[in-house]
Amino acid sequence: MTHLVHPVSKGICSQYDADRLESEQRRTFLRNSALFTGAALTASAFSAAPASAAKLAVSQSNKEMGREIEPEAYGMPSKFESHVKRRRTDVLKNKQHWSDWSMTPIHQQPGIVTPNGLFYERHHAGTPDINPDEHALVIHGMVKQPLKFSMNDLMRYRAVSNFNFMECSGNTLTDWQQAKATTVQQSHGLLSCAQWTGVPVSTLLDEAGLDPAAKWVLFEGADGSAHARSVPIEKCMTDTVLAYAMNGEMLRPENGYPLRAFMPGWEGNVCVKWLRRIKVSDKPWHLRSETARYTDPMPDGKWRQFSMIMECKSVITRPSGGMMLQGPGTYEIEGFAWSGNGSVKAVDVTTDGGVTWHQADLEGPVLDRCLTRFRHTWEWKGGPAKIASRAVDSTNYVQPTVADIAKQRFTSGFVQHHNGIFPWSVSENGEVKNAIA
Amino acid sequence: MTHLVHPVSKGICSQYDADRLESEQRRTFLRNSALFTGAALTASAFSAAPASAAKLAVSQSNKEMGREIEPEAYGMPSKFESHVKRRRTDVLKNKQHWSDWSMTPIHQQPGIVTPNGLFYERHHAGTPDINPDEHALVIHGMVKQPLKFSMNDLMRYRAVSNFNFMECSGNTLTDWQQAKATTVQQSHGLLSCAQWTGVPVSTLLDEAGLDPAAKWVLFEGADGSAHARSVPIEKCMTDTVLAYAMNGEMLRPENGYPLRAFMPGWEGNVCVKWLRRIKVSDKPWHLRSETARYTDPMPDGKWRQFSMIMECKSVITRPSGGMMLQGPGTYEIEGFAWSGNGSVKAVDVTTDGGVTWHQADLEGPVLDRCLTRFRHTWEWKGGPAKIASRAVDSTNYVQPTVADIAKQRFTSGFVQHHNGIFPWSVSENGEVKNAIA
Repeated sequence: MTHLVHPVSKGICSQYDADRLESEQRRTFLRNSALFTGAALTASAFSAAPASAAKLAVSQSNKEMGREIEPEAYGMPSKFESHVKRRRTDVLKNKQHWSDWSMTPIHQQPGIVTPNGLFYERHHAGTPDINPDEHALVIHGMVKQPLKFSMNDLMRYRAVSNFNFMECSGNTLTDWQQAKATTVQQSHGLLSCAQWTGVPVSTLLDEAGLDPAAKWVLFEGADGSAHARSVPIEKCMTDTVLAYAMNGEMLRPENGYPLRAFMPGWEGNVCVKWLRRIKVSDKPWHLRSETARYTDPMPDGKWRQFSMIMECKSVITRPSGGMMLQGPGTYEIEGFAWSGNGSVKAVDVTTDGGVTWHQADLEGPVLDRCLTRFRHTWEWKGGPAKIASRAVDSTNYVQPTVADIAKQRFTSGFVQHHNGIFPWSVSENGEVKNAIA
Repeated sequence: MTHLVHPVSKGICSQYDADRLESEQRRTFLRNSALFTGAALTASAFSAAPASAAKLAVSQSNKEMGREIEPEAYGMPSKFESHVKRRRTDVLKNKQHWSDWSMTPIHQQPGIVTPNGLFYERHHAGTPDINPDEHALVIHGMVKQPLKFSMNDLMRYRAVSNFNFMECSGNTLTDWQQAKATTVQQSHGLLSCAQWTGVPVSTLLDEAGLDPAAKWVLFEGADGSAHARSVPIEKCMTDTVLAYAMNGEMLRPENGYPLRAFMPGWEGNVCVKWLRRIKVSDKPWHLRSETARYTDPMPDGKWRQFSMIMECKSVITRPSGGMMLQGPGTYEIEGFAWSGNGSVKAVDVTTDGGVTWHQADLEGPVLDRCLTRFRHTWEWKGGPAKIASRAVDSTNYVQPTVADIAKQRFTSGFVQHHNGIFPWSVSENGEVKNAIA
């Protein structure tokens, strides 16, 4: 089999090796490079494996006892997976790390659940280590009765658990300046997905007793920047959750431990982490994060505020930037699609720069405001190609082109909420690159 | 709010403290014990929080910068969650740890996804650390053409990802001797759930070309015990997956890295880990794991072999053994239900030892052969009570009582595949205990 190489998987392998190169394991790269003499996947080719070799194969690990487990130690990935990790941006030079972010290696994520250890995060003043026994949440402002809750108080209520994606409003932001991002982790890695568990904030607001004039709600964090956002009361009373757990365990410190707001389908920065205060008012606060940041420049010279919904978007993760196709043959094209307005209805894939589109297969469960994986089998005949995906959500909204977006708002500068169709180019020798014009 | 204590959450807290006691943090226990003067959850009681206190509340963490992230370090839980971990059995004394197992803290798991770092595991000769670049899978026996695959070869194929529970055939085994297990982690912790990603084994068997007489398939591991099982060809050709990933990343070493068999709904031990060999035959191998182990004693004196399906089962995880109810009031009863034969159709909960049953609420997504969470609100009037859950699956099979099981097979000794209705007793003072007669 070793003379047979599937382009997509070797693509992964080349990415794999690129990662290892960072850790200077050149030997691995060279060894795998020797396998790069690919061929298409055909049944006949499998006859390469001799029966004798098959019968005689023995594993060294069969001849010795393995490690004793350490059940009381939290389990970790294999030492051979150390190249799979979050990464800082390669595009922007960050002079300090108090206000920082790290990206998820979505090209190395199978399925739709992002492991908590690889979940993207963005913070404005570092990550506080909060003792849950000393943490409190206060609800005040335009309510009949201000309330104060300990974590134990909050965990008394009936919880809900939902699978939802989380995306930073600035995901893909830097790439529309110029095609700087070399991998999909760099271009789209401010995206993750988890099953979130917590208490509907409507339960607590009902107990506090809303003033009939209440229209906006402030969510404030217990971090050094006291990051806060104003949220319309409607979002709070429908599906906003005070989340204390993700993917079957308490939140990770960098993701808001012990408590954060979670607003399905909305930009990550309104899902305030290390949540300590909720204040009800009849108007928004117009905070720095609502004027100088997280806004959209419009053609009339004004800036659009409070555009928190992350609209329908998709991206091809395999093959993607940094991978190599190993000559003409069969390729599995894979990626993620998601929408802050509902579920993913369909995904189309083009391999000729948008001239023709083919409907991809969606893998279930296809859930509301959750990552959905799509797959499309492609016969690459060799020669230059441009591949991209286009998602349609349950509201029939179609993921726009950059030109479509440009008709509604400026697409230069730091473009928030950029959900444009994202292309990868494939060169004649199989190299995959960011193909933004 | 601190004078108000919700029984269930304090139950968690008492378990929490019990865990901390193991790490000898008695101070924490005493501090939280002081909170145990509970009362029922009522809206009026919330007026305890003074508005002034609410307005003046300030967090210490708001006054300082937090930690800088280390994006290249795999993320870990908060230091305040160190009590949430897998544990060895407290019931059986294991004289060595080559053949061993550790249990998932399911009473501390929100949602249906078990974090990989807490996923239960059982091994027969320790955990090997296999280099995926050197690992190979061989398919031979009654096939037209024996095949040999590298991990890169396997990852060339179109993958599937499914959410499925995994349960050890011996889960709850020891508890039916005598009520030794003090917590649900000890009684039912050989149970976890993940989204599994891999290649359908049918794809590879089709390429190898099955002999028309093929009826059984051997799956053999690369561990020191070369653990192996015989599996009917039908299971292989329907839904058996060669899994290389779980919950969005490659398998953990103790869960079979880099490759394992996964058979949805079947006992964990047939999902052979560190998979290195698949051999096709016209009969089963009758290995030690199919004669001396993983079999069921029947009334006629014979032993039932190859009963790999984990039938419909459920258990209440909150409140459960080791927790404390804090006086009469409102309680959220929660637990898991699952079935190896399909999806969970309904769960009934009793709080009076089976005299009356109430239909619990199921939380979606309710998936095929996957953990499903149920919830039921209970008004405890005080005094002794016995609580239990009873699940019904999509085939209308009803989780049996111990008496029902005893009609079909012996329920003494090491009882494999025990899916009996499991009771917890609540004493007058609110103490929750294993209530097996």
